[in-house]
Parts: sequence; C-alpha cells; structure tokens
Amino acid sequence: MAHINFPEGLAGIRGPMAFSPETAKPLNALAEILLRDDNNTLSRGERELIGAYVSSLNDCFFCQNIHGALAGHYLACDIHYIDAVKVNYEATDISEKMKALLSIAGSVQKGGKHVTPVQIEKAKQQGATDKEIHDTVLIAAAFCMFNRYVDGLATSAPQDRQYYVERAPRRAEEGYVDFDLNK
Amino acid sequence: MAHINFPEGLAGIRGPMAFSPETAKPLNALAEILLRDDNNTLSRGERELIGAYVSSLNDCFFCQNIHGALAGHYLACDIHYIDAVKVNYEATDISEKMKALLSIAGSVQKGGKHVTPVQIEKAKQQGATDKEIHDTVLIAAAFCMFNRYVDGLATSAPQDRQYYVERAPRRAEEGYVDFDLNK
Repeated sequence: MAHINFPEGLAGIRGPMAFSPETAKPLNALAEILLRDDNNTLSRGERELIGAYVSSLNDCFFCQNIHGALAGHYLACDIHYIDAVKVNYEATDISEKMKALLSIAGSVQKGGKHVTPVQIEKAKQQGATDKEIHDTVLIAAAFCMFNRYVDGLATSAPQDRQYYVERAPRRAEEGYVDFDLNK
Repeated sequence: MAHINFPEGLAGIRGPMAFSPETAKPLNALAEILLRDDNNTLSRGERELIGAYVSSLNDCFFCQNIHGALAGHYLACDIHYIDAVKVNYEATDISEKMKALLSIAGSVQKGGKHVTPVQIEKAKQQGATDKEIHDTVLIAAAFCMFNRYVDGLATSAPQDRQYYVERAPRRAEEGYVDFDLNK
C-alpha cells in the first residue's frame, strides 16, 4: 500500500505526479530536456540506458523497467541485452565511451564525491565531451531523485516486465511532457 | 579543479547551471515550487531545513551551507541551531511533526525503500498531511539529485560559512527563478 492516497490505478511515478501536478511539471520538463532533447551527441537510447542502469543500482523496479524498455526500443535491442548491461556492462559490446560514462553514473549513484578524476580522464580519452559528462552526471543524479520519489512513497507497479516493453513505443512517441497520466 | 570547464568564479551549483542553462530552468522551477510556493502548510524555513539536513547527510558542503543559511534566515535562528538539527534533531526543540518528517527525509536519503509504514504513521499522528509527507519525500529526493550534481562535477565553493549566512537574505528575496547567476 502506498504511503499516501494517490488516485487509483496509476503505475509508478504516475501516482505521485497525479497527486502533485505542480511538481510533476518541472520533473517532466527535466526528463524531456535530459533524455529526449535532440541537441545532444548522446542518443536517446544511450541516455535512457544511463537512467535504467542507475535505477537498477537503486533497485527501483518501475524506473529500471520502463527506462530499460525505452533504451531497448531506441537501441533496437531486447530486454536481455539491457539486463546484461545492468549486471555487467564491461562484458557487453557497448562502446568504450559508454562504458566510461556508465562508470561515472555508477559513482554518482553512490554519491557525488565518488566520481574520480581518473574516471573523467578515461571518459575524455574515449571521446566524451564536457556536455556528455555533464549530462551523464545530471541524468544519474536525476534518477537518484526519481527512484527515491517512486519508492519513498511506496508506489505500486505492474510486476510483469513485458508490460513495460509493450508500452515503450508509445512512451517514446509521446515523450515526457503533455502525456496523459491515465494512458 | 572541476571535472568539466565551467564559466569562472561561480560557486557550487551555479557553475553547472551556467554551463547548461537549458537544464537549469526545470531544476530551478522545481526548487521554486518545492521550497518557496506559498500554497504549503510547511513553512519555507521548514522546507529549507529538510533540504539542509539531507545535504548534510550527503556531505555536500555547498548545499548544506546555503540551504542551512536560508533555513536560519526564515526561522530566525542562527547557524549553530541549524547545525544542532543536522547533528541530532531529536535533541532540539523543533516540533514533533518536523522530527517525524526529518526521520522520513533521512530514510529517503539512504534510498526510497528505507521509508517504513511506522515512520509514516508517526508523522500522521503528529498531524502531518499527505501533502506534507509527499513534499518531504520529494524535497529529500531532489536534494539527493542537487547534492550529486554539485559534487559529481567537483564544483568549488567558498569555505567560509559566513559567506552563506550573509547571502541568505538576498537569496530568500530573489528566489530560485530569474536570479542572476553572477550575483
């Protein structure tokens, strides 16, 4: 049972967002610019993958599944590949730059001071720009917020992971702003 | 040295915000609605205190000092009282409701799933509303983001704590939206 009374039947973050539309607005605006803005050399799939990875480290079922499914949709890979990245990205065939950025994201999840100059240098050696490093840190930090918002209020979410995979194409199309919370 | 190249001479979060004004906009809009909106039964001082407390748990020097100074400004108490709350709020004379909410905020800082039904029930017994609990969770979650953004990019900040105390009245007046990053 959720810790406060949300409108019925909304999954994950949608309950708190329906309860508090005035805070939902900047939260969704942040997600839109960070994860979907076209003025970015990280693809939408790469950015969703960073979010899904941090959500898995934070053990947030809803976020890691919906953003994992979105990453899979954009990157045209299945859920097992996304799971493999979450469990041990070093053993996958993602780019060396993405491995370096996921390493930074993983440190941000522990706490900002865990990010080391060596990690930053490694990312730069793999071609990461200042903006890509900035966005990786802020995406990881933002998911540390979203995950805590979802789980700190004890929201509920469908346990069937296929639910998220099936919704991903529509979520990718509708984006994070002006979507219908009930759909 | 910061991990990426910010404009020179900006303290704490202001460097990344100047680097990335497009993400600064929703971040500041979130802070404004969460910490300053008048349609709230938690005072501005109480909300800043929750932010300062979580920032101290995350060991973020800049955030705990500027938001601690703002809490002190609004609550008309000095920095030593704010420090006492951060170190052991149970031993201070803040309200029982605030103690219950700070307990929830402290759990959110560890991770959303650390919040227990017993903590929620205690807050409700002390008169906390669903909105107050919602806002406490989201403020705590948001500071887990802001703190990681500030420290994850290795920003610098004045070490003299008096700097923050002296700036608090102007920050309180100007708010989080449309302020001049250079002042």
